Amino acid sequence: MIEFEHQVRVRYAEADRMGYVYYGNYAVYFEVARVEMLRSLGLPYKLLEDKGIILPVSDFSVQYKKPAFYDDLLTIKTTIRKKPSVRIVFDYETFNEKGELLNTASVTLVFVSKATGKPVNPTDEFNIVFTPYFQN
Amino acid sequence: MIEFEHQVRVRYAEADRMGYVYYGNYAVYFEVARVEMLRSLGLPYKLLEDKGIILPVSDFSVQYKKPAFYDDLLTIKTTIRKKPSVRIVFDYETFNEKGELLNTASVTLVFVSKATGKPVNPTDEFNIVFTPYFQN
Amino acid sequence: MIEFEHQVRVRYAEADRMGYVYYGNYAVYFEVARVEMLRSLGLPYKLLEDKGIILPVSDFSVQYKKPAFYDDLLTIKTTIRKKPSVRIVFDYETFNEKGELLNTASVTLVFVSKATGKPVNPTDEFNIVFTPYFQN
Amino acid sequence: MIEFEHQVRVRYAEADRMGYVYYGNYAVYFEVARVEMLRSLGLPYKLLEDKGIILPVSDFSVQYKKPAFYDDLLTIKTTIRKKPSVRIVFDYETFNEKGELLNTASVTLVFVSKATGKPVNPTDEFNIVFTPYFQN
Repeated sequence: MIEFEHQVRVRYAEADRMGYVYYGNYAVYFEVARVEMLRSLGLPYKLLEDKGIILPVSDFSVQYKKPAFYDDLLTIKTTIRKKPSVRIVFDYETFNEKGELLNTASVTLVFVSKATGKPVNPTDEFNIVFTPYFQN
Repeated sequence: MIEFEHQVRVRYAEADRMGYVYYGNYAVYFEVARVEMLRSLGLPYKLLEDKGIILPVSDFSVQYKKPAFYDDLLTIKTTIRKKPSVRIVFDYETFNEKGELLNTASVTLVFVSKATGKPVNPTDEFNIVFTPYFQN
Repeated sequence: MIEFEHQVRVRYAEADRMGYVYYGNYAVYFEVARVEMLRSLGLPYKLLEDKGIILPVSDFSVQYKKPAFYDDLLTIKTTIRKKPSVRIVFDYETFNEKGELLNTASVTLVFVSKATGKPVNPTDEFNIVFTPYFQN
Repeated sequence: MIEFEHQVRVRYAEADRMGYVYYGNYAVYFEVARVEMLRSLGLPYKLLEDKGIILPVSDFSVQYKKPAFYDDLLTIKTTIRKKPSVRIVFDYETFNEKGELLNTASVTLVFVSKATGKPVNPTDEFNIVFTPYFQN
């Protein structure tokens, strides 16, 4: 299991006329959270793309419990529970400053070769990083 | 059952550096599709909000099969399968111009009173519109 | 001079907590308006990019007079006043359904070769289209 | 004169199919930069709105010199050159990690009473903060 926390401040453009963060904007927060998780593991996402691996999203789901508001400082907790293979699943929990759970979510990415457009296994540099977290 | 089709042209800002429509932007397309569906039924969403009913999203999920690209003219097929109660569930299918299914999705909205913040049943004007579509 | 009108419906995600269309979202509306203008002239923007010409923005300015609101149907009036050379200048006026002028704006694009990254003159297919509009 | 620097990491959703940050997204970066500037001065923007003052944008202009790319860490330098009255003008310079100037911009906000919709002078709490920076 790999866990990571990242904070995101809600921007003015991201709240709607109800005053709530627009439901689609969490997709952006979750992407920022997983990119920072990968960076903290020594795997900058941009480098992956430059090496010919893209990671399109295959599944995305969110269960919204409470809204976030403009200027809230959100904590996004990202968890990888299962050793990544062709697919990598990120589970999310979003908390506000009071520690209230605002939503839970899950995003599945697929390792795809840019050249062939086909799913591929994670490269060695990924496996070296991931393996120690998923022993036995 | 209520079915509705709406077309959306992919904007430049909505495609990412892979050339794909960014996964979070479908949330916006689905919102546009359900708003136009409600308008076609004589239920303009803005009017609802002006009457003190808000419809926050409680659940959102997407299964992505193929990407959409910049300037694609997408057809979003929206279906309400079950008579709305406190919750209203919209199912979606997105097609490109070749008729390929790009993704399927589901969005659940909750009728909430702006004044109390509590879930409420759909008002009469909703029921009058919905009832004929869900006879036995 | 070339003039073109295009209509855009304000989406929920595009209005902010003041209820106004967020000031940066007009950049998207103006892009949609000029892309549709070029399409109406037989010059689909996507085709240009596929031919190795990109058109990055060099200058953008807006003077906001009145806000637009969620669900407003806006009319964007786009005007090219001067025959395009290496640069092409689009002037904009945005109107609401009451015909009120909401803002005026200007966007300058530069024809750039994707291969060299250098500014280039418009290709023949552009000149053939533009020339008849700028006979003095 | 008041000067402030803030850093923004370019998100995946913010780069377009050219790989460039979409021109309209700088509006969001500039808003984040001025909000953080005001926060550093003890003037949280959200508090202002809660007190019945809104600050809509009246003018916005950008001169783009070089593009920013996905994952770039940008430094936004914000400057207020003139003591705010009914209007407050923010000047911006955006730099990449190599210290290259990517663009310059200017945003003018107007102090408006939410209740009356009319422009108003900055309140005392603003003046107390601003005055020391603009002596003689």
